[in-house]
Amino acid sequence: MANVRSIEELLKSFQDFMSYISWNKVPTELYQPVDYMMSLGGKRIRPLALIFVSEILEGNKQAALKAAYGLELFHNFTLVHDDIMDHADIRRTKPTVHKKFGVNEAILSGDVMLIESLSFIKEAESQIGSNYLMKLFLKTAREVCEGQSMDMAFENKQIIQMQDYLEMIRLKTAVLLACSFQMSAYIANRSELALALYEVGICVGQAFQLEDDWLDYYSEHEDFGKVKGGDLLRGKKSGLILELLEAMDTSEKKDFLKWYPSESQNDNFMDRIHLVFNEFEVKDMLRARIEAFKQKAFTKIQTMKLSKEQSTLLTEFVNGILNRSF
Amino acid sequence: MANVRSIEELLKSFQDFMSYISWNKVPTELYQPVDYMMSLGGKRIRPLALIFVSEILEGNKQAALKAAYGLELFHNFTLVHDDIMDHADIRRTKPTVHKKFGVNEAILSGDVMLIESLSFIKEAESQIGSNYLMKLFLKTAREVCEGQSMDMAFENKQIIQMQDYLEMIRLKTAVLLACSFQMSAYIANRSELALALYEVGICVGQAFQLEDDWLDYYSEHEDFGKVKGGDLLRGKKSGLILELLEAMDTSEKKDFLKWYPSESQNDNFMDRIHLVFNEFEVKDMLRARIEAFKQKAFTKIQTMKLSKEQSTLLTEFVNGILNRSF
Repeated sequence: MANVRSIEELLKSFQDFMSYISWNKVPTELYQPVDYMMSLGGKRIRPLALIFVSEILEGNKQAALKAAYGLELFHNFTLVHDDIMDHADIRRTKPTVHKKFGVNEAILSGDVMLIESLSFIKEAESQIGSNYLMKLFLKTAREVCEGQSMDMAFENKQIIQMQDYLEMIRLKTAVLLACSFQMSAYIANRSELALALYEVGICVGQAFQLEDDWLDYYSEHEDFGKVKGGDLLRGKKSGLILELLEAMDTSEKKDFLKWYPSESQNDNFMDRIHLVFNEFEVKDMLRARIEAFKQKAFTKIQTMKLSKEQSTLLTEFVNGILNRSF
Repeated sequence: MANVRSIEELLKSFQDFMSYISWNKVPTELYQPVDYMMSLGGKRIRPLALIFVSEILEGNKQAALKAAYGLELFHNFTLVHDDIMDHADIRRTKPTVHKKFGVNEAILSGDVMLIESLSFIKEAESQIGSNYLMKLFLKTAREVCEGQSMDMAFENKQIIQMQDYLEMIRLKTAVLLACSFQMSAYIANRSELALALYEVGICVGQAFQLEDDWLDYYSEHEDFGKVKGGDLLRGKKSGLILELLEAMDTSEKKDFLKWYPSESQNDNFMDRIHLVFNEFEVKDMLRARIEAFKQKAFTKIQTMKLSKEQSTLLTEFVNGILNRSF
């Protein structure tokens, strides 16, 4: 196997690639918001996954960069439109696109980001002479919309089944990461690995999102008495709440929903949350669910036809994502 | 040449194809607005152009239907998002998508229409083993966004050059029709005709849009004293106004812009419009510009390597679009 570049080197090469892409085009009204959004930063997890896995499989470097940029552009398109729908004012400590440029501008610039993301995927596809990237990407893009639609619909429902929630985060979050993993198989001309890599991506994506939910209340700061719980104060039906509802019987649910989330402004709200979470062992239950997804990802990697070194690198990378090391 | 089906037959075959496409999918919240929008009707000019030209060039019928549906879906996506941006309540006598389902739903359903339109183009591409459809379509889609962006920016400008207006309608309206024409060349494996067909589509699209502007004031009902002039009452900088401004010198422009469009609510507004249009021969000037575009389209057709019969059919079809016969 060729010398595999480090995560830091690969991230640097992606950032270099990004800096070559100019959005300094006319009409300025259309492209300036794109430039703004793409400059806001972010962890670049999806492009990094594509580039790293492609690297260990010895895929075409230029095609990987182009496809990775397409994925990141698409991800940022979803953020622009989601922020409008959520009436969010701030993104990465800066004003959201619609706050800075106006709602109409954010709708239209989001549209062109979606279109341009496909152009990058198309370019990557041409470069490797494959026919698979675009098809996978279009399916993924459709599913992300389905996930966002489910998420919006959940806001109007009092009770959501954990199963439906898992399906929602699979669509809204996990499929795009899974798409990143799978694309690297095509880019490295190793399509026999495509489905397994997709599965790994789904498990990692779901574990990652549930961990997000878990950290909202049980973050590392817990020991210092610094409980965040922002999701809970906003009455969100996050993984923690759904785990709780799963553990409750009908009458317990009824009692709980009498005060959650309607009494979130009361002084004793977080104390009550604390008690009920302890009573139903929510912390451990959700933790077990997260660990099961992680384990599934690692087991899947073991079944793949990879060299020992590739397998180790992939496992370490997945660990890195899940431990939020980069 | 094989027996060419009539416009009516082709429209019928497209409508049959449309009726096979089901949007009765989950999540309902996402797909119901798509179904609603696609059922509102419309002239289906773009798909008809693709199918008809493909028919006279003896292209693959199934690929033509799929690509045509992709174009129509894309066109309807632009209408859904444009209606949000324009705060339009009514479309084809029915409530617009955002009025009926909500703005967030219209944004997201529009997004999925854009994504699905690309899936149809992709399917058509696979069917004919071509690599050109998607690339052309992505370029076109980007340009349509650029046209919409220019149109929005024009609202904040007092004076627009006719040249910039023509560029705006080229992007916002003409390129999608031109894309329909050009795609049929690829679908019929006659790529040597691609650029000429694109040019024909651009000319027809621009003539069509300028005619729209012209008809707003000089419609067939003029002889009966029934002047519409809705564009003018709304203070729109349509082709008529830009033709007028082209003909005026600096001080005449200044005088005109003192009362247009600010005094559009005054009783004598339309009388003043009438006088100034007559004085600067706006009716004939814009008519001449429209005719020049038409003539350019017909001349272009003459230069194309087509059989006598194909050339006649294409000319008649273009005439039909421009005379709004279907």
